[in-house]
Amino acid sequence: MNLEAQLKELGLVLPPPPKPAGAYTPVVFSGAFAFLSGQIARKADGSLWTGRAGADLDLAAARQAAEAAALNSLSVVHHLVGADRVVRLVRVAGFVQTAPDFYDIPKVMDAASELFQKVFGDRGVHARTSVGVHSLPANVAVEIEITLQLSA
Amino acid sequence: MNLEAQLKELGLVLPPPPKPAGAYTPVVFSGAFAFLSGQIARKADGSLWTGRAGADLDLAAARQAAEAAALNSLSVVHHLVGADRVVRLVRVAGFVQTAPDFYDIPKVMDAASELFQKVFGDRGVHARTSVGVHSLPANVAVEIEITLQLSA
Amino acid sequence: MNLEAQLKELGLVLPPPPKPAGAYTPVVFSGAFAFLSGQIARKADGSLWTGRAGADLDLAAARQAAEAAALNSLSVVHHLVGADRVVRLVRVAGFVQTAPDFYDIPKVMDAASELFQKVFGDRGVHARTSVGVHSLPANVAVEIEITLQLSA
Repeated sequence: MNLEAQLKELGLVLPPPPKPAGAYTPVVFSGAFAFLSGQIARKADGSLWTGRAGADLDLAAARQAAEAAALNSLSVVHHLVGADRVVRLVRVAGFVQTAPDFYDIPKVMDAASELFQKVFGDRGVHARTSVGVHSLPANVAVEIEITLQLSA
Repeated sequence: MNLEAQLKELGLVLPPPPKPAGAYTPVVFSGAFAFLSGQIARKADGSLWTGRAGADLDLAAARQAAEAAALNSLSVVHHLVGADRVVRLVRVAGFVQTAPDFYDIPKVMDAASELFQKVFGDRGVHARTSVGVHSLPANVAVEIEITLQLSA
Repeated sequence: MNLEAQLKELGLVLPPPPKPAGAYTPVVFSGAFAFLSGQIARKADGSLWTGRAGADLDLAAARQAAEAAALNSLSVVHHLVGADRVVRLVRVAGFVQTAPDFYDIPKVMDAASELFQKVFGDRGVHARTSVGVHSLPANVAVEIEITLQLSA
């Protein structure tokens, strides 16, 4: 499977491989797992989806931010893991930068989850935890952390 | 072991198996682990423990919310994993929706941890991370994510 | 390798083994992994780095808090795991108690990441997720959760 071609068919662009924002690495392989670093809502052109869901961003925009964070996770998979090695998307943790009274966090994160399932099919059905946080790196609206099970 | 009977002896009711709030699944089995999705503070009757610890909910109420989130995690274990397969409750992540100056997060989460240990005994002694978050799905007071090690 | 001696060379003091703040344990061993509980920014003398990054603590102070939380994680490794058994620092999750407009979360967490890499070398290069949270236990500025891969 070629993630880049697959995303193109969905009308989406795989962003370039994200650079870590600090003293860490985008992915660690350990046992059967690939632990990815948190990926933020950066667009393919390098600009960011910034602001708070429920204040600066409405639900539709926050969903686009979640999709962008998912695309950056997929870029790590494409460039540093290899999509063919993915046995299962195990876990997704979603962090949404929220207004104090914004509770539609699952609807935001669904944009990421739906993309993962379009791309990986049954292998993309994952466990998920989503919370609304006070602030995120570079004022982005969404950050996503995924864990994958790989073939040996 | 029958979780439902065990909880009944503790005066507690196992809630029905929780439905995911979006495009994900309640549990993924991977290697020796079961990764559960975040479970929110839903009561057995379907209503929610909503609000902020330290503002809308005092410590006692927030602890009940944590217990409810733990009960929903146990419902996933009962219905979709099998309590007898649990070798160890490995990890608990607790997210408490807090007032800005509410710091008694560990006391809230202890209500969940204590329940897990009542139910699983030594197998229920877990590593834990607890934080206070800005907002949670559906304005619930507590969300809990657990990871279990299972027998082969 | 002796973590205590290694830290001394860096001008740092290994704090005493942290006591859990509630009904959980500092570390669970499961499969090839050691899952550590969240460790807060407690100094070697027992006092805490409290307050919000961007309000009560500037970047330099928040970085010291992150380093303190990392030192407490290393204390768990020293006293309860054994540094020689560490094959790889797999994952670091960083929670920074932030002012609403403080976004330099990666710069704060780098103080922890850099320490881990000084101590463990290549084995310390990890995946990382960092978020800004609303409140933390005991009003600390930073909490860190790490996962390690161990030798058999």
